Amino acid sequence: MEPLILDDRIKGVPGGTAPFPASEVGARGWNVLREDLPLPLALLKDEALRHNSRWMQRFVEASGAHIAPHGKTTMSPELFQLGLDDGAWGITLATVGQVQAARHFGLKRVLMANELVGKQAIRYILDELARDEAFFFTCLVDSLDGVRILAEAARAHPIERPLTVLLEGGFADGRTGCRDRDGAIAIAEAVKAAEPHLALVGIEGYEGIIRLADPRQAEREVRTFLRYLIDIARECDKRDLFAPGLVILSAGGSIYYDYVVEEFSRAGLSREVEIVTRGGGYVSHDSGMYRTLFAEIVERSETARGLGRGLQPAIEIWAYVQSRPEPELAILTAGKRDISYDVDMPMPFRWYRPGESNALQEVGPGHEITDLNDQHAYLKLPQDSPLKVGDMVGCGISHPCTTFDKWRVMFVVNEDYDVVSAVTTYF
Amino acid sequence: MEPLILDDRIKGVPGGTAPFPASEVGARGWNVLREDLPLPLALLKDEALRHNSRWMQRFVEASGAHIAPHGKTTMSPELFQLGLDDGAWGITLATVGQVQAARHFGLKRVLMANELVGKQAIRYILDELARDEAFFFTCLVDSLDGVRILAEAARAHPIERPLTVLLEGGFADGRTGCRDRDGAIAIAEAVKAAEPHLALVGIEGYEGIIRLADPRQAEREVRTFLRYLIDIARECDKRDLFAPGLVILSAGGSIYYDYVVEEFSRAGLSREVEIVTRGGGYVSHDSGMYRTLFAEIVERSETARGLGRGLQPAIEIWAYVQSRPEPELAILTAGKRDISYDVDMPMPFRWYRPGESNALQEVGPGHEITDLNDQHAYLKLPQDSPLKVGDMVGCGISHPCTTFDKWRVMFVVNEDYDVVSAVTTYF
Repeated sequence: MEPLILDDRIKGVPGGTAPFPASEVGARGWNVLREDLPLPLALLKDEALRHNSRWMQRFVEASGAHIAPHGKTTMSPELFQLGLDDGAWGITLATVGQVQAARHFGLKRVLMANELVGKQAIRYILDELARDEAFFFTCLVDSLDGVRILAEAARAHPIERPLTVLLEGGFADGRTGCRDRDGAIAIAEAVKAAEPHLALVGIEGYEGIIRLADPRQAEREVRTFLRYLIDIARECDKRDLFAPGLVILSAGGSIYYDYVVEEFSRAGLSREVEIVTRGGGYVSHDSGMYRTLFAEIVERSETARGLGRGLQPAIEIWAYVQSRPEPELAILTAGKRDISYDVDMPMPFRWYRPGESNALQEVGPGHEITDLNDQHAYLKLPQDSPLKVGDMVGCGISHPCTTFDKWRVMFVVNEDYDVVSAVTTYF
Repeated sequence: MEPLILDDRIKGVPGGTAPFPASEVGARGWNVLREDLPLPLALLKDEALRHNSRWMQRFVEASGAHIAPHGKTTMSPELFQLGLDDGAWGITLATVGQVQAARHFGLKRVLMANELVGKQAIRYILDELARDEAFFFTCLVDSLDGVRILAEAARAHPIERPLTVLLEGGFADGRTGCRDRDGAIAIAEAVKAAEPHLALVGIEGYEGIIRLADPRQAEREVRTFLRYLIDIARECDKRDLFAPGLVILSAGGSIYYDYVVEEFSRAGLSREVEIVTRGGGYVSHDSGMYRTLFAEIVERSETARGLGRGLQPAIEIWAYVQSRPEPELAILTAGKRDISYDVDMPMPFRWYRPGESNALQEVGPGHEITDLNDQHAYLKLPQDSPLKVGDMVGCGISHPCTTFDKWRVMFVVNEDYDVVSAVTTYF
């Protein structure tokens, strides 16, 4: 795909910059602390990104599994390529709109971790499968209605090969996915009956929405769910409902992938199994939710501990202090348009006074962002905080997905905040 | 500006569509209910948009005021032009990044309702003022530090005319803005001392963050704050701190603009005054927060009532039912990536079964979206709800700003859901 042409309509690009390809940003010699770029700015840390991508690859390899990074997190061709270069199985996506974008990036292997529904969405997938025999695509089914809709579309629009699907299992009070084994088997039988238009190539579930205060209870519920998926897989295996070839077993968001690889490696099917986990947040990691959850993984997983240095926060938002209107309040030039706010408020951790010092300072205790408006952050601080109008403040975030989708370009910096490359996004 | 070229990397465009200019979308004959487009989809209602834009123009004209629609809501050249064609004073913006984009749209008159800070931001504005004498730009100051930074930059980069500013007043526990009159006057004096590089052209405040359960108390606080702004204006007038020409008095988000025009029209300055309100959400309006707040305005404002039919919700998100995994649960193909969730959950109100019926159905009682993930909505519903996999569900939203920023294109439809035009966004 042609790289995105950056111009100053795009947030983060200095006003007056003549259009140039994002891939050439490293040659411009921009440094963030020298104020070569306007704020707010979303930054990715080069070394941490690369480390995180390799870390996950090493984790799944050590576990006999694969990673299909969830592309919905970043929707970025550069980050998809980073994962693929490190050995990712393919890319996970959530919607056909995302598949459309990803096909422009040249992706050949897509696991759509969602039901495929809607006339245009199904038509497009069938067209792409017909047009490019190197394109592997699979999606989920969790209902007889869903199978019927796909089968009718595939029958009406015959292509040379089946539309492959994974049967999704779910749990009570969960999201999508069939809640009981008998129902699941009935769906698998319906897929079988729709051959050669459809083909069942595996079993899928998503355990990431299980969130419990008690980690032991969470573990029990996650393992119970994973065993339910295995149970469905064994029954499909026994009844010969899978299409010929490998069987895919897929689960695993960013929280419980250690349980996933452990349970799935004991599935014991008669067929060769490919275990595909689907974390998305690990490449940027964060300074909030995922940092906390990752600490728990390291604590409980020998494999994770064996890999040494763990995942590093690789995403930061920088903004100026634009006002300090009360002794204990500063207002920053970043808001809901720039940064995640769905899980935690941003966490200020570094600051810099342009022109006066070369040293990045740590943000002291008592500095806390308490609220965001569309374009403003409310930073409560001690009366004697050194921060004043014109200072730059760097913030960590919680939940990368909802920061990535607020930027069309994110600059990748080295430890000195030199811009070395660009990550573009297609939301 | 050249219209955006739509291709199927852009959410909402059917897969496989060859690139074409957004301005030509009306000629394609697309209809949403015929499933010519993939879902999720953000739609704007043509008639309601035009009505809302005219309504606000009529309101401010009847009040002796002006509207500078807040562009941060939509960041859309088409919607900026709609407001300007109806007679808007100019466009309000929140950041220099937004100004950069808006300059590509051809905007000549910008009120940046924010402090201007940061080397690149200030440099760009001075460059633009130097480059185009038809460009009017004004921004806020609320601190001596802020004035010093602007004055130093303007001195170092002399242009043929002053950088004009509005002095921002604020209130305790509020956002930006000087909290006391003496401090405000000191800032105004500092601007005067920085002539001819800076020029004070008015007084500004933002009352929209005053939210109280008791509307009477809210009214008192809003009016008290507006009178504080007038008090600053009178003192600046008396001390001759304003630059020659009109004096701008600006306040007014989407909640209290009736109080703003009423109070400001009594300012009684020695100079001619231009009252500029800055609502942004009225053009799309919504089905949640603004709908409720607008009902209060109509109740209390004779001017508003005198205009007849009020603001109409003009924004909808449509998604498919992709799963109905439990008797009282459906999962829709839209999530945090597609729709506002910072104030209220989306409100399903209409549904449609493709192919089976031409009639749009009202969503019955008991259907409620209770949660969103990145790409999914949880719709709780009665066991006997007719909704099934493949049905289309239309949702109203609350807080348009955080829906607009999730779409690069939003299709404008008529009452039959024919796509008649496109609204593009530049966040």
